[in-house]
Amino acid sequence: MIFSIERDTLLNHLLNVQKGLPHKTPLPILYAIKFEVHEDHMILTSSNTDVAIQVFVDATDLKIKQTGKVAIPGRYLIEIMRKITSSIVEFALIEEKIIVIKADRSEFKLRLMDVEDYPEVDFLDLDNPVILDSQLLKTVIKETNFATATSEKRPILTGVNFKYQDKELYCVATDSYRLSQKSMKLKTNSKNFDIVLPNKSLDELSRILDNYNDELELYINPNKVLFKMKNILFQTRLLEGNYPDTLRIIPKEFPVEIPFNKEALLKAVERVSLLSPKDRETNYNIIKLSLRADHVVEMSSTNHEIGDAFEEIIPSGDAIGPVIKIAFSSKYLVEALKSFSSNEVVISFAGEVKPFIIKGELDANLLHLILPVRIE
Amino acid sequence: MIFSIERDTLLNHLLNVQKGLPHKTPLPILYAIKFEVHEDHMILTSSNTDVAIQVFVDATDLKIKQTGKVAIPGRYLIEIMRKITSSIVEFALIEEKIIVIKADRSEFKLRLMDVEDYPEVDFLDLDNPVILDSQLLKTVIKETNFATATSEKRPILTGVNFKYQDKELYCVATDSYRLSQKSMKLKTNSKNFDIVLPNKSLDELSRILDNYNDELELYINPNKVLFKMKNILFQTRLLEGNYPDTLRIIPKEFPVEIPFNKEALLKAVERVSLLSPKDRETNYNIIKLSLRADHVVEMSSTNHEIGDAFEEIIPSGDAIGPVIKIAFSSKYLVEALKSFSSNEVVISFAGEVKPFIIKGELDANLLHLILPVRIE
Repeated sequence: MIFSIERDTLLNHLLNVQKGLPHKTPLPILYAIKFEVHEDHMILTSSNTDVAIQVFVDATDLKIKQTGKVAIPGRYLIEIMRKITSSIVEFALIEEKIIVIKADRSEFKLRLMDVEDYPEVDFLDLDNPVILDSQLLKTVIKETNFATATSEKRPILTGVNFKYQDKELYCVATDSYRLSQKSMKLKTNSKNFDIVLPNKSLDELSRILDNYNDELELYINPNKVLFKMKNILFQTRLLEGNYPDTLRIIPKEFPVEIPFNKEALLKAVERVSLLSPKDRETNYNIIKLSLRADHVVEMSSTNHEIGDAFEEIIPSGDAIGPVIKIAFSSKYLVEALKSFSSNEVVISFAGEVKPFIIKGELDANLLHLILPVRIE
Repeated sequence: MIFSIERDTLLNHLLNVQKGLPHKTPLPILYAIKFEVHEDHMILTSSNTDVAIQVFVDATDLKIKQTGKVAIPGRYLIEIMRKITSSIVEFALIEEKIIVIKADRSEFKLRLMDVEDYPEVDFLDLDNPVILDSQLLKTVIKETNFATATSEKRPILTGVNFKYQDKELYCVATDSYRLSQKSMKLKTNSKNFDIVLPNKSLDELSRILDNYNDELELYINPNKVLFKMKNILFQTRLLEGNYPDTLRIIPKEFPVEIPFNKEALLKAVERVSLLSPKDRETNYNIIKLSLRADHVVEMSSTNHEIGDAFEEIIPSGDAIGPVIKIAFSSKYLVEALKSFSSNEVVISFAGEVKPFIIKGELDANLLHLILPVRIE
């Protein structure tokens, strides 16, 4: 196996493949990236228990002298490529177990793993795909993934639910204290589906999408899904189990609606939560928010040991409804606000002990919901 | 006690005082910053077991309505000031134990600590001071402090030795594997001294010097020293014990001298150490360097499990001397190189088992020394 390629080209491909390397695995061969070098292209593969990634390389700067396949220790290879400053790198298999990497006056000899040990990975694209816009998918991940559960108490909540029904795609994440939901139409129709994608897989996919601007195809298989990009296949396992029916917990009636400038609200929430006491269950800072009769909004926190904080905010437009007082974890509001593109948001309250929701002027079909805590 | 001040002014002063707050202390009052508000100025004090800091504030935007003194919880106060966006903040003592901080529509009530509990700190400026240039002192800290010991095995090595003798000031740090030494003349003469300043104190001082460009006065007292700046007093304890005589371990004769471009050498060292085996004692990567008969420099590392790395570097000028081969921890060379301002450095070798030294073209009187390890 002998080939040369531009260092930048190879590094970019490797950084995508890297997302499929395991952090820890009982199967050491998975620490390798599998290189399959053919006559006019090569295929790089990585995989772990969650995801499998395959990158197809046919760059014009890839010059193949001899075909072959090898398993190269992934992290060492990537570290080497990062530190190399020359423009071209050459790879040559000199013994069955050693590959030489040359770049200017640098030379690395890396011990290979046995490529025959690398497990066969099936990338299944049998079904009719769902067509997705890469930037929209990236936005959806940003808007929902943060709201998934971090604890494994209810494993199904550590993923984002993608549910297609009545010609609408709902993407929902909740940790049972707050919820994020984005809905959208698809470009082409699809059969109904109801799947839950692990939050870590979505994080990795999102990083790959940072450098991908095109359509992608989603193939849904019984236990896994495949995202097919131009040169990249990204496959992830699905979470097993039934995702809770979240639509029914979203209140329908909102007697109180208050519009805010997002940045002003965010800054005020951050200030007022500096001294606030922690919730017993979640350990997050609890703050109080109330709409006064004069339609000024007050936020406050009281900490018997440290002190009190108090803020007044003038709504950015006309507030609707009677006075209300509600308490909640400031972290949930901060994270929800940060996920909006809009500068103007509206918070709608269903009552003092009911969930409240936040929507953004420019963020169509995006909804965040937060459960209040009882005020003692 | 009532006063107002510009938020930016106060925050800048607080960030200097912050360097004297303890991370952990059995004396909770030290978590406070002591405010002493006089007719036309105020004094802020912080202290811990290593350092004590006092800042004198007489900014024109400080408007004092009522004098007084209080102890305000330091980290909460600084967090509040960081998050405030209004230009002016007002402080008012409303009860004996509560201070109100107002900024626009924000209001904080902080519980105070008992200012009478705050320990008296003497800032001693009795002696004739040594006059130091702040930027030179900052440079010296950058050039030496990284080479101090991190382990407490020999506590005296966790500080930098400042030794004035024969009208020359030597600043030396060593962890017994490598050494950094900077020497310089003083502007005014001083009595001889020989003191060791804790590395953490120097780190904090260096951060204060980031925003201070003027002369400063150094007062040397039996167990501590005081750095006196225009508005800031910075006092640190000294390390007890005798600093080893390091001058005698610096070789005098160097049969081999090799000039390098610093950046090219740094990059090559970083690459060749990617695969290199670890030193048993320090756990740092060991690499080999040799000057060949053709005056090309080779660097290499061999790792039986992972693979080999090899680099050739052409010296940036004429290398002097016979062939030589030496092994050492790459980390020491990387850190030494990074502390130079020069683009051109010279490494001088006294022999294969003797310390070697590095000097920079533009870094007058700065010397780094590294002990080799034996090649097996």
